[in-house]
Amino acid sequence: MKDVPVGNAVIGQSGGPTAVINQSLVGVIEGLRQGLIATGTVRRIFGMRHGVKGFVKDELHDLTGLDQDFLDHLAATPSAALGSTRDKPDGPYCERVLAACARHDVRYFYYIGGNDSSDTCRIVSEMARATGYELRCFHVPKTVDNDLVTCDHCPGYPSAARFVAMACMADFLDNISLPGIKINVIMGRHAGFLTAASALARRHDRVEGSSDGPQLIYLPEVPFDTDRFVGEVEGIYARKGRCHIAVSEGIQDARGEAIGATLIRGGQTDAHGNVQLSGSGALGDALGDVLKARLTPKGGKPPRVRADTFGYVQRCWPDPSPIDVREARRAGRFAATLAARGERDGSVAVVRVSGGRPGERYVSDFARVELSEVAAKTRHMPPEFIDGASNVSRAFLDYALPLVGPLPDLARL
Amino acid sequence: MKDVPVGNAVIGQSGGPTAVINQSLVGVIEGLRQGLIATGTVRRIFGMRHGVKGFVKDELHDLTGLDQDFLDHLAATPSAALGSTRDKPDGPYCERVLAACARHDVRYFYYIGGNDSSDTCRIVSEMARATGYELRCFHVPKTVDNDLVTCDHCPGYPSAARFVAMACMADFLDNISLPGIKINVIMGRHAGFLTAASALARRHDRVEGSSDGPQLIYLPEVPFDTDRFVGEVEGIYARKGRCHIAVSEGIQDARGEAIGATLIRGGQTDAHGNVQLSGSGALGDALGDVLKARLTPKGGKPPRVRADTFGYVQRCWPDPSPIDVREARRAGRFAATLAARGERDGSVAVVRVSGGRPGERYVSDFARVELSEVAAKTRHMPPEFIDGASNVSRAFLDYALPLVGPLPDLARL
Repeated sequence: MKDVPVGNAVIGQSGGPTAVINQSLVGVIEGLRQGLIATGTVRRIFGMRHGVKGFVKDELHDLTGLDQDFLDHLAATPSAALGSTRDKPDGPYCERVLAACARHDVRYFYYIGGNDSSDTCRIVSEMARATGYELRCFHVPKTVDNDLVTCDHCPGYPSAARFVAMACMADFLDNISLPGIKINVIMGRHAGFLTAASALARRHDRVEGSSDGPQLIYLPEVPFDTDRFVGEVEGIYARKGRCHIAVSEGIQDARGEAIGATLIRGGQTDAHGNVQLSGSGALGDALGDVLKARLTPKGGKPPRVRADTFGYVQRCWPDPSPIDVREARRAGRFAATLAARGERDGSVAVVRVSGGRPGERYVSDFARVELSEVAAKTRHMPPEFIDGASNVSRAFLDYALPLVGPLPDLARL
Repeated sequence: MKDVPVGNAVIGQSGGPTAVINQSLVGVIEGLRQGLIATGTVRRIFGMRHGVKGFVKDELHDLTGLDQDFLDHLAATPSAALGSTRDKPDGPYCERVLAACARHDVRYFYYIGGNDSSDTCRIVSEMARATGYELRCFHVPKTVDNDLVTCDHCPGYPSAARFVAMACMADFLDNISLPGIKINVIMGRHAGFLTAASALARRHDRVEGSSDGPQLIYLPEVPFDTDRFVGEVEGIYARKGRCHIAVSEGIQDARGEAIGATLIRGGQTDAHGNVQLSGSGALGDALGDVLKARLTPKGGKPPRVRADTFGYVQRCWPDPSPIDVREARRAGRFAATLAARGERDGSVAVVRVSGGRPGERYVSDFARVELSEVAAKTRHMPPEFIDGASNVSRAFLDYALPLVGPLPDLARL
């Protein structure tokens, strides 16, 4: 083992919860027990209550003595068991984080979250180094949006993608049964990966040329044009008498303006000045209103248009992808081994070793990457995953299908 | 076997689809095969495409020769495989239904749906009798709203209740993790059974005095008072810094006016003049706006308020309650046996034999009831299931818990 400081460890969870974020929490605890606790290097393991927000106020759980049966139970529970926070610390805030580390003799800092959380790790680690405080800082990836630039995919994404795929499978059959225009609004403010997962709802035995829903998929990466949207829906509705549509909450126009903000009068903004997209049905309803207004024949009845916004249940539904369960746990364990290898800081990358083609066995591994590589950067759907204005490619399906676990096999007359 | 006419059978599905409505379809087919087909009384089994709407236009599937493996597969598929309809036939419409029966030599008419569907059966049966056309008419109950007066509970309800319970379990942990005020809007235009199922999300080991969410449950059966609502939310939010709320889409004020209609400017109405409650996030967003406006301290920040509307996924989620799966199938089979017992028409009632107390084994059975007993009537949550202005009773939990199947066992720190 490399030279490592003796002291305590702290683990925090940040940002939107996922179905498997507690797997990563338990993974870090297990990794520490097998390594730095076993060698007497780490004495106690603390959990931050509500991430850095609680930590700077000394709000801690003591996780040191939890038994393995309880840890297994906790790992299988969705949402952030320690509590989460939306705080994105700046320099002065990170000074308070570092001061909290010193107060609790914390020498090992683990933060489970998205790109903002990795940025917190980066600032705290640089500050510790500059002030000569011995601290090891590690970021464990987590996000349903799948927007970290260093991961093949992020823990949390496969389970959310599984929910979206299953919901769209069932909802498409509902749409066939009672025909009309159906819009489903899906999470992902900047990246379309989760919305794209709606395409997994189509029958995989005949994806090419499938007329299964969603027939139209609108991603934040493709500028949204309202006229083109109306035209595409009209075309399918005219042919089939129904249309099944998946829309990202983050769709934007060619100037980068969120459609949510431009369509919705009096759009809500959150603490960061972002338009509130989740926890509201406003975007779906606004798009539905556009379709009703534009597709009503002169003197005729408006088409039946319904919009559902999948909401928070997509990030915490208690039936996670089996691969996601395992990878989130392993990502936490991997992070816990890095200090003993001599690393001062870093983020964990999920690497796909194989499994991107039909029939190929899926295998993943983990690697350390620099915090600066992931911090505050956003990954988008690459062009090869996108097919035209309103579809995803075969390459995306090959990428996503191995991740989500077995999907229901549904019959049709 | 009693005197029965020789001819064909037709089966239709009507109203909102459910996760198990195809179990009932397959149950009718199986019941006919074991009975009237085996005796040569029924020759062919037709399926109506989109219920009576397709039937009167001679739009039929031929279901006679489907093999049992495929039937099992179809039964396990959510949503109405034959296609459904919202049409509620009146007298002249039912004349066209009867004419279609005559054209296809249909002597056995099975309609799977809610109280409107049972009324269709009633009108068609009376008309057939009046005109001397030999016809047997049977209604198979189906509704996620659970609002048929003749059933202990309706096939479809347990699976939808299961979704609502699981969603609220996970979403409550989300609400603890990132605190704020969370509103979940749940289906049920006139009856609160499905919204009440949100209470199953609480930990059952300590329901009495549990502070688990949802802490507030608003049902259509209890007049909704906006001031009281704001006061109740404020009280819990002041104590806990968060509040988890379940609201029926059908809540109404003391005059019987839908809150959806009064709060929402320009509320949509459907073909029957009803305010559109499903397929829109408008009610949740309107309630959220009320809370933000009323609970923002002077010169302070508004509370974090989010609203999700569970939407169509709650009626078609492909993980049904095991009891619902079996009962929906059996209800279909039971309907198929009634003619051979000499019945001219009728509806199937689900009867609870035992299983309304903790530890008691759940057993159900089926009985024939008169169509006029169920037709066009609406069952509401009985007073003994309701506890005050914003909660359900222990009796409701004892009623609902055996129906939904095993719920996830979640851990907390």
